[in-house]
Amino acid sequence: MISKKMEALGKKPSAIRAIFEYSNKRKSEIGADKVFDFSLGNPNIPAPKKVNDTIINLINNTESTTLHGYTSAVGDLKTRTVISNNIKNRFGFNVEPNNIYMTCGAAASLEITLKALCNPGDEVIILAPFFPEYRVFVENADAIPKEVLCREGDLQIDLDAVKNAINNKTKAIIINSPNNPSGVVFKEEALAELSGILDGFSSNSGEPIYLICDEPYREIVYGDINVPYIPNIYDNTIVCYSYSKSLSLPGERIGYIMVSPKATDSSDVYAAVCGAGRASGYVCAPSLLQYVVAECDGLNPDIEKYKANRDLLYNSLCEIGYESVSPDGAFYLFTKSLEPDAAAFCEKAKKYELLLVPSDSFGIKGYVRIAYCVSYEQIKNSIPAFKALFDEYNK
Amino acid sequence: MISKKMEALGKKPSAIRAIFEYSNKRKSEIGADKVFDFSLGNPNIPAPKKVNDTIINLINNTESTTLHGYTSAVGDLKTRTVISNNIKNRFGFNVEPNNIYMTCGAAASLEITLKALCNPGDEVIILAPFFPEYRVFVENADAIPKEVLCREGDLQIDLDAVKNAINNKTKAIIINSPNNPSGVVFKEEALAELSGILDGFSSNSGEPIYLICDEPYREIVYGDINVPYIPNIYDNTIVCYSYSKSLSLPGERIGYIMVSPKATDSSDVYAAVCGAGRASGYVCAPSLLQYVVAECDGLNPDIEKYKANRDLLYNSLCEIGYESVSPDGAFYLFTKSLEPDAAAFCEKAKKYELLLVPSDSFGIKGYVRIAYCVSYEQIKNSIPAFKALFDEYNK
Repeated sequence: MISKKMEALGKKPSAIRAIFEYSNKRKSEIGADKVFDFSLGNPNIPAPKKVNDTIINLINNTESTTLHGYTSAVGDLKTRTVISNNIKNRFGFNVEPNNIYMTCGAAASLEITLKALCNPGDEVIILAPFFPEYRVFVENADAIPKEVLCREGDLQIDLDAVKNAINNKTKAIIINSPNNPSGVVFKEEALAELSGILDGFSSNSGEPIYLICDEPYREIVYGDINVPYIPNIYDNTIVCYSYSKSLSLPGERIGYIMVSPKATDSSDVYAAVCGAGRASGYVCAPSLLQYVVAECDGLNPDIEKYKANRDLLYNSLCEIGYESVSPDGAFYLFTKSLEPDAAAFCEKAKKYELLLVPSDSFGIKGYVRIAYCVSYEQIKNSIPAFKALFDEYNK
Repeated sequence: MISKKMEALGKKPSAIRAIFEYSNKRKSEIGADKVFDFSLGNPNIPAPKKVNDTIINLINNTESTTLHGYTSAVGDLKTRTVISNNIKNRFGFNVEPNNIYMTCGAAASLEITLKALCNPGDEVIILAPFFPEYRVFVENADAIPKEVLCREGDLQIDLDAVKNAINNKTKAIIINSPNNPSGVVFKEEALAELSGILDGFSSNSGEPIYLICDEPYREIVYGDINVPYIPNIYDNTIVCYSYSKSLSLPGERIGYIMVSPKATDSSDVYAAVCGAGRASGYVCAPSLLQYVVAECDGLNPDIEKYKANRDLLYNSLCEIGYESVSPDGAFYLFTKSLEPDAAAFCEKAKKYELLLVPSDSFGIKGYVRIAYCVSYEQIKNSIPAFKALFDEYNK
């Protein structure tokens, strides 16, 4: 008998995947421009020009055996130096190259970090709404995901609920801000208060509770929003970063883990990260892309397109009468379903060729995720469909 | 408490790693050309020109959001089509794109395959000498590595020993041919006999035993050597392939898993592979490199340099009096230690600035691995040192 757990995981269609397949079918039936697919979080702005220029420059001027050769398992030293310098300059947080471990993107960063931290039976708190794969990665580390709902209305952290969920099995809390799927940026005061709560528990139990900060959307915020750098607020923090969204490179699988040097037993945690990466078959992060990061870390994405999309979509839906969570970051609008069953609402939306993701797989009921990393045209053309859908519920 | 298992794995210096660090230190003391470092299996021939040409062409002619965007989790369809067609043409083995799953290299292929197949307590037979990370990947799948020594002298598979090691917990056998570290290519007749043995056990127990073929060195063989395509010999076969050595791209992490369509429950195994890849945080293999593979799969590496190295090293060491295993493939010479303790022998070799890897971590005693993926000059210059070392033992 093979692993039935893995077989089931491979066969379980993710909600988003199922919509993706319906979308392709529907597009072939009625034409791609007639289908308003808002299901996928795939950046639709190109990588900054410097990324491709850097690749060509590296190809032309670097010896093949270096460019395409193994880097050390933790990653190229120059790349890690650039990243740690940028962290110092941007956030005033002191970190050295040997606190950085290069990875194959955010999913790898999370999988490795959880495996490094958790022993069988440990609990990891995930704040709903959350990215559905968190459950998979927590369970892969033989730990138990413990879901805690965010505050109704603004979907900020519910500190009392978190407090109630913590016990002596709590190993970590995953923080994802800007948030997928809600677009919410968690506020600095709440994070400071959370830090105090965790320190209180730790000093009682003698065991740290880690904050794992999943930050692929850090650079994607609109207006005057401050995304607090959590290592400045709480010592036992591990940052899982990815260049998927900031440099529009989701397919290239490149990111890093930063183990805060202020963490309890920071160097042991870093060693465990190395061990977990090794056990999971991550020999090194893709070499060419590591060298690209050495040149391009810190580049800001041109988010004007996302901002225009957000403004058009958010304002139009407000005008129609939809209620959405304040969309401060990422490229998702999180909108209230017009009936309690979000899946049923999404089925109705399909009649108008609107493909939305029901919030159930994000661990919360009654919302839909609308990914606006699509063309401005698509949003413009979809507004009458959103209006008709609203009218069906409000005749 | 964090995971002590992962912490220990991260802190345990691999034998090869320790030599690598000694090498760097020694080179800075006496000059790089004075140190004969034969420890690393890092290809020293450049990637075929077509690889870099293809990258530049893709950069110039493909939309950024496609080139750097997510592919499906199993990999780009065109890439998998090219690979499956090439398998048909080269080996006469019928395989479809949906039997192929693109991975981040051979380590990922193995980790995913083992996790897909194994339940806790299963046993996986590994044939010594073996690549040391096999133990890590088998244990990561909650399974138990069961070491079986190859036949003394020629290091071919010891079929009686394998037969004795099989029991009703045996889930798989890892076959690595051409072999790292021995350079041996397993013979077709032995594999056919092994196939018969496994079929016999399976028909008794009702449970298949899988052959996991780790094939990064398939293309690196010298002279008229046939590397049998094992799926043609045994149905329950899973091939773990990597382009690290064939295209000299070890840092780029690109390879694939092929689940034989003839395997028992082939589609369930494939689903379990998808599930295991997902659980381990492998979202997709690096996209740019997948598109490179679509153009470059099947290119043969220019192994003339390796062949010249092999001939010089093997013949020179024979002449001095060393005994080596017949080096038919890969880029390793596996040579008998001049004393029973290979580690002590390697320590003595250091006096002559020869850096060799003792065989103990490969699961066998009394040999050293000499990686000849180095410059021809290095080999030429090292011969007097090998001679002096031999003379020290034979005065």
